[in-house]
Amino acid sequence: MIRAAVAGATGYAGAELVRILAGHPEVVITALTSRQYAGVPFDRIYPAMGGIITRQCDEFDAESVCGRADVVFTALPHKLPMEIVPSMLKYGCKVVDLSADFRFSDPKPYESAYQPHVAKDLLSKSVYGLCEVFADEISDAELVGNPGCYPTSVLLPLVPLLKADMIDATTTIADSKSGVSGAGRSPSLTNLFCEVSESFKAYKVAAHRHQPEMEHILSRIAGKDINISFVPHLLPMNRGMQTTIYADLKENAGDEAIRDCLHEYYRGRRFIRITENGRPPDTRDVRGTNYCDIGFVADRENGRLILMSAIDNLVKGAAGQAVQNMNIMCGLSETVGLTAVPYPV
Amino acid sequence: MIRAAVAGATGYAGAELVRILAGHPEVVITALTSRQYAGVPFDRIYPAMGGIITRQCDEFDAESVCGRADVVFTALPHKLPMEIVPSMLKYGCKVVDLSADFRFSDPKPYESAYQPHVAKDLLSKSVYGLCEVFADEISDAELVGNPGCYPTSVLLPLVPLLKADMIDATTTIADSKSGVSGAGRSPSLTNLFCEVSESFKAYKVAAHRHQPEMEHILSRIAGKDINISFVPHLLPMNRGMQTTIYADLKENAGDEAIRDCLHEYYRGRRFIRITENGRPPDTRDVRGTNYCDIGFVADRENGRLILMSAIDNLVKGAAGQAVQNMNIMCGLSETVGLTAVPYPV
Amino acid sequence: MIRAAVAGATGYAGAELVRILAGHPEVVITALTSRQYAGVPFDRIYPAMGGIITRQCDEFDAESVCGRADVVFTALPHKLPMEIVPSMLKYGCKVVDLSADFRFSDPKPYESAYQPHVAKDLLSKSVYGLCEVFADEISDAELVGNPGCYPTSVLLPLVPLLKADMIDATTTIADSKSGVSGAGRSPSLTNLFCEVSESFKAYKVAAHRHQPEMEHILSRIAGKDINISFVPHLLPMNRGMQTTIYADLKENAGDEAIRDCLHEYYRGRRFIRITENGRPPDTRDVRGTNYCDIGFVADRENGRLILMSAIDNLVKGAAGQAVQNMNIMCGLSETVGLTAVPYPV
Amino acid sequence: MIRAAVAGATGYAGAELVRILAGHPEVVITALTSRQYAGVPFDRIYPAMGGIITRQCDEFDAESVCGRADVVFTALPHKLPMEIVPSMLKYGCKVVDLSADFRFSDPKPYESAYQPHVAKDLLSKSVYGLCEVFADEISDAELVGNPGCYPTSVLLPLVPLLKADMIDATTTIADSKSGVSGAGRSPSLTNLFCEVSESFKAYKVAAHRHQPEMEHILSRIAGKDINISFVPHLLPMNRGMQTTIYADLKENAGDEAIRDCLHEYYRGRRFIRITENGRPPDTRDVRGTNYCDIGFVADRENGRLILMSAIDNLVKGAAGQAVQNMNIMCGLSETVGLTAVPYPV
Repeated sequence: MIRAAVAGATGYAGAELVRILAGHPEVVITALTSRQYAGVPFDRIYPAMGGIITRQCDEFDAESVCGRADVVFTALPHKLPMEIVPSMLKYGCKVVDLSADFRFSDPKPYESAYQPHVAKDLLSKSVYGLCEVFADEISDAELVGNPGCYPTSVLLPLVPLLKADMIDATTTIADSKSGVSGAGRSPSLTNLFCEVSESFKAYKVAAHRHQPEMEHILSRIAGKDINISFVPHLLPMNRGMQTTIYADLKENAGDEAIRDCLHEYYRGRRFIRITENGRPPDTRDVRGTNYCDIGFVADRENGRLILMSAIDNLVKGAAGQAVQNMNIMCGLSETVGLTAVPYPV
Repeated sequence: MIRAAVAGATGYAGAELVRILAGHPEVVITALTSRQYAGVPFDRIYPAMGGIITRQCDEFDAESVCGRADVVFTALPHKLPMEIVPSMLKYGCKVVDLSADFRFSDPKPYESAYQPHVAKDLLSKSVYGLCEVFADEISDAELVGNPGCYPTSVLLPLVPLLKADMIDATTTIADSKSGVSGAGRSPSLTNLFCEVSESFKAYKVAAHRHQPEMEHILSRIAGKDINISFVPHLLPMNRGMQTTIYADLKENAGDEAIRDCLHEYYRGRRFIRITENGRPPDTRDVRGTNYCDIGFVADRENGRLILMSAIDNLVKGAAGQAVQNMNIMCGLSETVGLTAVPYPV
Repeated sequence: MIRAAVAGATGYAGAELVRILAGHPEVVITALTSRQYAGVPFDRIYPAMGGIITRQCDEFDAESVCGRADVVFTALPHKLPMEIVPSMLKYGCKVVDLSADFRFSDPKPYESAYQPHVAKDLLSKSVYGLCEVFADEISDAELVGNPGCYPTSVLLPLVPLLKADMIDATTTIADSKSGVSGAGRSPSLTNLFCEVSESFKAYKVAAHRHQPEMEHILSRIAGKDINISFVPHLLPMNRGMQTTIYADLKENAGDEAIRDCLHEYYRGRRFIRITENGRPPDTRDVRGTNYCDIGFVADRENGRLILMSAIDNLVKGAAGQAVQNMNIMCGLSETVGLTAVPYPV
Repeated sequence: MIRAAVAGATGYAGAELVRILAGHPEVVITALTSRQYAGVPFDRIYPAMGGIITRQCDEFDAESVCGRADVVFTALPHKLPMEIVPSMLKYGCKVVDLSADFRFSDPKPYESAYQPHVAKDLLSKSVYGLCEVFADEISDAELVGNPGCYPTSVLLPLVPLLKADMIDATTTIADSKSGVSGAGRSPSLTNLFCEVSESFKAYKVAAHRHQPEMEHILSRIAGKDINISFVPHLLPMNRGMQTTIYADLKENAGDEAIRDCLHEYYRGRRFIRITENGRPPDTRDVRGTNYCDIGFVADRENGRLILMSAIDNLVKGAAGQAVQNMNIMCGLSETVGLTAVPYPV
């Protein structure tokens, strides 16, 4: 059994990790930490877990946590992980970090989007945990930077076509829509029920910190600098992320070629489902699951590809992919513990 | 492995059965039937199940279904089950019927609420499948009438206190609120998104067909006729049912006695959770699960007990309890296949 | 034209007052105050009002506000109004206070539910602003305590039947459900979108501070002490309040007598609509309006009356009734400025 | 007073027309027609209107309706209006048609998207009722084709910049999101609450019938053929439409120039609000109103303009703009009857 700890267990992503790990057949949870709720049983914070996760939350202490865990998930705000991860690695733990701190191999784009990096030397060792793309590197990693939710929803449909040189990546536009849970559990005016309900709007237009992350990875794959236009929007729902991507087709490749490219690239990867006949993926179909559903329509009039993806921002966009990373890092099948049947409604 | 079939698999309750059975470690699904979608793969109707439930839906045929199944779940509209269940039993299948057709041991209340009963002789053999109350009878049953969602949410909190003679059952009022999935998947004006969203109202006030069902069971337990006032309301959400019950306390029993009564009655029954300190149960905490959370507050000023319950109308109120019944009928632990960890959010 | 000021204009009730007053044909808004947003144009806080309410919010100053206004609406947290209202009355303003501070004629129940009262002498002068019940007193008042949202939804259906001695008030149970806007605009975990959405639960069971307010008024009308059981619930919607009331019928009066009693009492009162044939009132039908829709069903089996009401908690439950009070205090028709046609959907 | 009739008054757009017309100071409603509800009082279909719109719905009869009305609004499914409008014009009525039948000056694009046109001769006389763009023509029109909701949300932000030659229209992508009321009131599986709630997806990708309408108008304005990519998405809310548009900037014009262009074009047009500093417009801020809020951000890295708009699909996208058209056709100020103050929440 893998001994797993979650640092920052009481935020939404942390709690979702707890949910998934608690049902994982190869995992035993050995520590949950929370600054705000130290000393409080987890199921008092999340009564849904009543009688299931009765473990008390601890203050974070690297030595104590690492003494009890083989793998630590850090579900903490940016900046904290880069301060504590180095010591955790020294204690011999594998780490999956859900913040942005270890998603960049180069400190520059990180620092321009976030803040000065205090663990730069680890960036060359950390692996970007987009499982279906970088599984080989992940399998050897001690430290994985778990991708952001938006980058996951943008990169998974885009990467195969970019690698196959079927699209002109410099024309890429990603129009994303996210459920509210991505904003976390801290009280704020903008996330009040009355402010979100019956509302839909864009935010951080062409200014979201996930954009440099996408561009960093796309550039790495393309072997040249790629800039995209990225506009996130806020949806009045808890879970779910849908992205519609527009990019010029290079040779106006046929539908079959596009379909083959996606199927070929994701052959054997259970969490990627390519929809048939251009059926647009729906967030409800991936709710609570680690799936990324992908569909496409070629707009022939304009020589443009329209790619669509749907994920659950808390699962494939956070906790689910983190556990998938753990599975790969630990030599398990990537799907273990992630195969719950989705709700029909 | 138990071979299970679902007749009426494409309605919401049927599809929820498919979800739960597909994840059940002791079950293999051998048939799904649907009049409307015969010949169509299940995952084309519910794309969430894409690649998971690819089996095609069949027309219902008793011989064919029973030849393939040990247990058949009938998730069909009232009236159909009583026409087809007799032959299914003859073929040697166990049957869990989710309609009202086999919930009454006496045809009279059934016929006054529904229609003439055409399989009256089975009513003495069928068992009312309120698992935590009638487990002994269920374990010997070939045919179980799975309780209605409202009766489940009303009876589970009420039965222990009625049995302990702590409340005056003749003063009982049940004010229930249900998510929309209880209304099923047939298109109708009243269930359109625009009609339900931003709306809350009572319906079928003191005239819902689940009321005779509750009274039938309460009367049986009390050993005398019990009438209650029951008012259902429609909630703008998919899943979830909350009931607040008011009843006069007989001797103004103390909080501890009430709590003990509930704990004692449900000792060892994992799906019943009694909240602490009167914390009101929340539908979100039981979403997607087979739990029934129960809380209470004694209104001392008025000598009245206020009991509250929360269930998922599609799970404990339908498909989950149906599978729990199957477990009991087949000699399994009642919890098998029903222990998915709830969503934190 | 009536010069009107709103103290506490940027909370939800305050902003709703601004909305209604801005459309009132006999009113000109002369001051909006806000501690948090002093110096900020109102439409920057509520962009919906862009170009409509461009007035800047001021710090509250009794002299300055009263110098500019004939009527002041105080939409402030409990406790503040009793500190500032006395001086405002001295400056000659009429005051409609939306807090609980002036709803009780007797300081005792107020003090047991809230805190020590510092303007007790005003309690004998203040009038409880339940417009359809106390219009005569309101028309002479300088100070009105605007009713709470829950008391409005409970009292309006109940009062006529209590006055006509048709129900046994001591058996009254009120089961209420409220939209989230009643909780105000201050960030808090419990009002986050993700905490409210897909959730339904009771709160402050038999312990809400609006209960003493209801009992105070009911006792006054009945001429004897009345205790009721009151359970509020939180609905996943912005606006709307539904209450289902249960009370024993005294003589098992017929449906026609009940209907006549309600119609007679509310004859000529435009904001009260009695539904036909027991149709349950729906919150969507009163959204954004000052209506209180009332329906009833007599549960003959149990000799019990089931009364239902629906209001918009921010309008008839707060700002709308406040403006209606102003209309009555100022000698206008009570309906002026409150007759916008409701949304069909 | 203008005598107004609504043909098809009981659909959502028709009922919204009734709402707006009932509050219009220069209008008296003289006829409401409905095939489905002929003989039924309007407020029995929409209880929100109880006591406000008690008029009975009639079967449509051109002579009878036109004898009573100066202006007729046809809120009917495509195809019906072109059959009945010719005779209505002969009876001397002005007509605002909310279907697509009279939106195209050329039958070809209409016929390729819809069906053969049977009143082609009227197409040269009908005017496209995008009020802020074609007011001059509208003021002389007897017949107005009221724009579709999506075209309204796309054209209003785009037209000024296209006219000023600041964007390369051939690069235009419009990613739109609509509330469910746009789908109408006919029961269908896809619009059930349980199917829409917690769901977000694209539909009719690059295949929606509103796309030819947009292209028809854009081409007319540009003086050359314009094709765009248009992807509509379905939002889990009743009312509201948000569109994010992407188009290459021609000369990489500065923010101020873009802003000036929009402000200049819409000077004096009250229903267009340009947000400040790129603040993204929010559907909630225009709910129930005739506003179109427009914001923009220039993505300098990519030389691309990101334009955003928000409207209420039932108001500016249907009934509100229809009444605005009537105002212009009848020589009134375009804002009469359309100035209700928006809800703050």
